[in-house]
Amino acid sequence: MIDKAVILSTGDELTTGRVVDTNSATIADRLFAVGVEVAAVLKVGDDREKLLWAFGQARDLGNLIIGTGGLGPTADDLTTELVGEFLGRKLEQDEAVATALKQRFAARSIAWTENNLKQALFPEGATIIANPVGTAPGFRVKLEHGKTLIWLSGVPREMAAMLNETVMPWIVEQKGDAAKIAACMFKIHGLTESKLDELVKPVTLGTHAKLSFRAHFPDLTLRLTVSGGAARENEFTEIRQQLRQILSSYIYAEGDATLEEVVGQLLLKRGQSLALAESCTGGLISRRITRIAGSSAYYLGGAVTYSDDTKVLFLGVKPTTLEKHGAVSRETALEMSQGIREKTGADIGLSVTGIAGPSGGSAAKPVGTVWISVAMDNLHEARLFQFHGERERVILGASQAALNWLRRCLL
Amino acid sequence: MIDKAVILSTGDELTTGRVVDTNSATIADRLFAVGVEVAAVLKVGDDREKLLWAFGQARDLGNLIIGTGGLGPTADDLTTELVGEFLGRKLEQDEAVATALKQRFAARSIAWTENNLKQALFPEGATIIANPVGTAPGFRVKLEHGKTLIWLSGVPREMAAMLNETVMPWIVEQKGDAAKIAACMFKIHGLTESKLDELVKPVTLGTHAKLSFRAHFPDLTLRLTVSGGAARENEFTEIRQQLRQILSSYIYAEGDATLEEVVGQLLLKRGQSLALAESCTGGLISRRITRIAGSSAYYLGGAVTYSDDTKVLFLGVKPTTLEKHGAVSRETALEMSQGIREKTGADIGLSVTGIAGPSGGSAAKPVGTVWISVAMDNLHEARLFQFHGERERVILGASQAALNWLRRCLL
Repeated sequence: MIDKAVILSTGDELTTGRVVDTNSATIADRLFAVGVEVAAVLKVGDDREKLLWAFGQARDLGNLIIGTGGLGPTADDLTTELVGEFLGRKLEQDEAVATALKQRFAARSIAWTENNLKQALFPEGATIIANPVGTAPGFRVKLEHGKTLIWLSGVPREMAAMLNETVMPWIVEQKGDAAKIAACMFKIHGLTESKLDELVKPVTLGTHAKLSFRAHFPDLTLRLTVSGGAARENEFTEIRQQLRQILSSYIYAEGDATLEEVVGQLLLKRGQSLALAESCTGGLISRRITRIAGSSAYYLGGAVTYSDDTKVLFLGVKPTTLEKHGAVSRETALEMSQGIREKTGADIGLSVTGIAGPSGGSAAKPVGTVWISVAMDNLHEARLFQFHGERERVILGASQAALNWLRRCLL
Repeated sequence: MIDKAVILSTGDELTTGRVVDTNSATIADRLFAVGVEVAAVLKVGDDREKLLWAFGQARDLGNLIIGTGGLGPTADDLTTELVGEFLGRKLEQDEAVATALKQRFAARSIAWTENNLKQALFPEGATIIANPVGTAPGFRVKLEHGKTLIWLSGVPREMAAMLNETVMPWIVEQKGDAAKIAACMFKIHGLTESKLDELVKPVTLGTHAKLSFRAHFPDLTLRLTVSGGAARENEFTEIRQQLRQILSSYIYAEGDATLEEVVGQLLLKRGQSLALAESCTGGLISRRITRIAGSSAYYLGGAVTYSDDTKVLFLGVKPTTLEKHGAVSRETALEMSQGIREKTGADIGLSVTGIAGPSGGSAAKPVGTVWISVAMDNLHEARLFQFHGERERVILGASQAALNWLRRCLL
């Protein structure tokens, strides 16, 4: 029975502080959701003795070890070799992986070097874990006493894909129905973590239900998990319903969708097109929307009007408006959304203009002052938002607020 | 002699994945800079047994233990009590801290509760570490064999203040010059990790020099560290010089700068302005540039022309060009860069048009086909790039290639 995990994050970049380890938090979050406790997270550099120490500690502390990092082709990638040494098993080259690696290089016209074959070596008896978005696959090996060691790529995007597509389904399968966990996730906008905590406090949770929060600005996620399998399905349904009622309009998605995905789906459903006029967000909203495959079906494009001149040129904002009210004003925001809508012929125009900082603020318009405007049939409105914190926080907050307001206009 | 540290990050929020631990990276980074190796980072929850295990391991592995978290007033804040237990020392209330705590509450009109006095308890013989931005102070205690244990607040802002103002000066004082490390970092574009590894292989590294890589697509970083203080300054300088020669044009920065920062600095130096015409990158280049404070000094803005119509409208691309050559072509890219340059009056126009995928590719123009064009005085050119992998990789790769070509044009 898998119930206690140890996470190993490896690499010199972690122990020298060059990189913040996000992998262990991602893994811990997913394990928590399926009722696996994380006994400890161990981080060590690319060093033989340290890695062997970590393997040993992890085996003593838990019955599931999930490690990341050190699977690459270079000399400081020691993981597979040391796992073999730790387990007393030989390494074997997997021919299918070796062939796939060579093909991958050929397809991209990248010169093949023999050190890449290192990524096709696995401890004897290991099950290979496919890496759908990178070169180095991972592996799973059985240890004594029913324990398991799983190793994944240290690149967060690759790690997440391997975790979600292979590792989590395997863990859930191992745990069986009784241990199965019903879980749902709400994506929240417009609440601080402490305010959210307060709102959900009245919800009665039995010993099997757990609420967990995860704040990663500007995202806030609330996860409900109820363990105990099918027998507790009713309890789960009831609590979920309560949460939906309490949080209603703060929830922008149930599940894993991003705000831009939700907006994209709504635009598709309504068959409407969008154009953007961004100033302080500098193209971030456009970037978020176009990150989604198929966004060209509803997104026409937009203008990043970082200077006054470009606001006049691309959006037809009146110079007198800029003079009289300034670039960060209700009037300018309204002309921007209307301008981009008219110029492009889009069904909806969305504009953002504000002061991201650190300079450019004044007493009347401090850093963080942002005007957002929507122009669509039967609606042409601008709203004032005040964000706090450093430049990046203002930009992120403004992009999220703009997308969320657009979402609500589309409902 | 302090030379080997173990960092302990504690709290249930870390082992359940609710929060990404940034404290350990902050501490590791500062320790690395003064030549203290981090043997391991251990993360455990607010749990008696786990904490005692972590204390024991840390004492065995290093001669400096720096821990964070669990110093607050609530029941799950166990640190001080357990450190006392671990060391076999009584806790004593520090009257100055107790008084300061009460005054702090009174000054903020927050009701005083007795549990707050917990934060005035310290293990016998401890030196108190002031917390300039929060309530709970930290402490430093001597262990046997010249080892030291330091504990700080888990709130990142408080931790950083305590680390910078008290802990780092103390460590530097303890260490002499001899242990200092010389380090430099190169940011690389245009090489895979394995190709980079191969290129630097001929460099002779003594036992004191270390090269480490980090790939975070589209970024690739190479770090050189030489330990041994002033005595090895020459060795460091020589290896750095060799690396510069071998990697020359692949290096876009020495140090921590991003490519967009390098480009921004070059534009500032030349007193030139930039405008962007983005298609497949969807605003990402604009976003990267505007993330930098002060970018409005050289960035005028741009157009995200996601549809054919917007390419005509905002950039003046000829409809016949689009018809004859397609949106993803040398001709369109050239007209886009020239168009945005002329319309905005910018000194430099940069354009990107390509097929990010997953759909939209053809045999002649597969997914990943990207044309990039620069228009400036004496240069109006377009180049074809072929990227591989999923949509996000094509977009990231294209944005990096465009910025890097722009950088080289500015040199």
